[in-house]
Amino acid sequence: MIDYYDDRRYLADAKKIIRIKVVMKIIGVLLVSLLMLVSNVAYSQDVTVKIGHKDSLYSSILDETRNLVVTLPDDYEATGKSYPVLYLLDGTENNLIDARLVAYNLKLEFIIVAIANTNRDRDMMPLSRPSYKVENPQAHHFLSFLGEELIPYIETKYRTSEERTIRGRSLSGLFVMYAFLAKPELFNNYIGTCAGWFADMGDYFTELSNKAFKDKNSFNGRTLFVANSLSDPLDPKQEIHQSLVDFSKKIKSALGDQVRFKYKTYENAGHVPFAAFYDGMKFISESEKDE
Amino acid sequence: MIDYYDDRRYLADAKKIIRIKVVMKIIGVLLVSLLMLVSNVAYSQDVTVKIGHKDSLYSSILDETRNLVVTLPDDYEATGKSYPVLYLLDGTENNLIDARLVAYNLKLEFIIVAIANTNRDRDMMPLSRPSYKVENPQAHHFLSFLGEELIPYIETKYRTSEERTIRGRSLSGLFVMYAFLAKPELFNNYIGTCAGWFADMGDYFTELSNKAFKDKNSFNGRTLFVANSLSDPLDPKQEIHQSLVDFSKKIKSALGDQVRFKYKTYENAGHVPFAAFYDGMKFISESEKDE
Repeated sequence: MIDYYDDRRYLADAKKIIRIKVVMKIIGVLLVSLLMLVSNVAYSQDVTVKIGHKDSLYSSILDETRNLVVTLPDDYEATGKSYPVLYLLDGTENNLIDARLVAYNLKLEFIIVAIANTNRDRDMMPLSRPSYKVENPQAHHFLSFLGEELIPYIETKYRTSEERTIRGRSLSGLFVMYAFLAKPELFNNYIGTCAGWFADMGDYFTELSNKAFKDKNSFNGRTLFVANSLSDPLDPKQEIHQSLVDFSKKIKSALGDQVRFKYKTYENAGHVPFAAFYDGMKFISESEKDE
Repeated sequence: MIDYYDDRRYLADAKKIIRIKVVMKIIGVLLVSLLMLVSNVAYSQDVTVKIGHKDSLYSSILDETRNLVVTLPDDYEATGKSYPVLYLLDGTENNLIDARLVAYNLKLEFIIVAIANTNRDRDMMPLSRPSYKVENPQAHHFLSFLGEELIPYIETKYRTSEERTIRGRSLSGLFVMYAFLAKPELFNNYIGTCAGWFADMGDYFTELSNKAFKDKNSFNGRTLFVANSLSDPLDPKQEIHQSLVDFSKKIKSALGDQVRFKYKTYENAGHVPFAAFYDGMKFISESEKDE
């Protein structure tokens, strides 16, 4: 005979076993699902390549969080070396892949920081004109964000050398020109592919250049590479080309050998010539060899 | 009182509970490990891009399995369209990324088939000479593999148009030249960046050309783009450059307008000029527009 106490305990234990069995079935199903998920992720037939890792920082100046993708050189972890940094405007996946491929082909080692856009017109444009209207041009704020927030953040977190390169294309190429004139000490190398401005922006950039070139020393040792195409569908009247021809004369007469400067036009290369980024990175790397 | 039978049953059930608890602990640890693994794989901060999917086929001709990475156009699944195919020799990740970026920039839609090497010298070289010694040159076998095995496999499995392009660089660029002369009907477009041969291979290619150019019609509508660099460290005496200058004269006099042919040299671009693949793809795409 089972006494009342033991009977209750037995029943309770029996219920426990049933509950445990149910839980185990659920866990079993979960385990199988998880294993399928893992095998799907790890053993899929897809071929993927890692192009970097996510990073971000909150900018007080812009009052928003800015997303980054950072690519470290392959041997970053294995070495104790410090690396130059390439700041990539319009930091899309394709631009980052482009930059990685260019660095790979030129055998250059860079930490690449791709900066995703939030409000591109606001950040890239220092002005608004009928040729390109921008509601709220705030390039000076974006430049402060780079100098006061992003660069210190990157240089604290990663092993960086003191060499900084910025690259923009099209609208962000115009920003690179603005940054070169407004804060030449911030980067060592400025690459603007499909940079330049329309005719109605000429006065603004003339004034900015005049002011900037008064302090020649701040440009000492800087490198500037700008490029565009004579068949740019966004520049049908070759106004951007003309702005850069004029600027080339101006910078040569004002700064002479103070800066390494190259303006390259491509005959039939559409908007943002494919080879221009490679040629720009080659130009700045040759500069390093000279030193 | 508990009778003997019930006592045994109780004890057995108690042991069962203990065993189940141990098993559950193990499962718990497994679950946590799996969750960590999954979160690491799926929610890591890594940024990856899919560049294609794995494929492979067994080649009776080469008596080995050949690995491929195939990239389908973004809208492949959504459309019922057939696409041209770009066969990429030296099918490394970087060459595939390069090809994808070039296609993206030129707004070209291709199925890209990257063919991984097994024995590169054997497959790419039709001959062995003191300038480049190959133990067992079997380019004719590799060409048969392409024509009789790979292309039928790809054209059965994927929605392909009839337009086929082959691209090689350096040693595989030499193979592209060989393929153009040995089997001009196999591809519509041949791109050899850093193609050409050393002086001691000249006789072989002269004989191959003489034989090939007897049947002018087999070259009808073909496009050939070859490129190299005047500063190629692997061609210090410019023998490869000279071979292509001579070949250019020969093909123009033998075939005239029968083929679209371009030979481009780059001044200071090292081995395999960065822009050459883009320029080659641009050249073949302009050919399509002409038609």
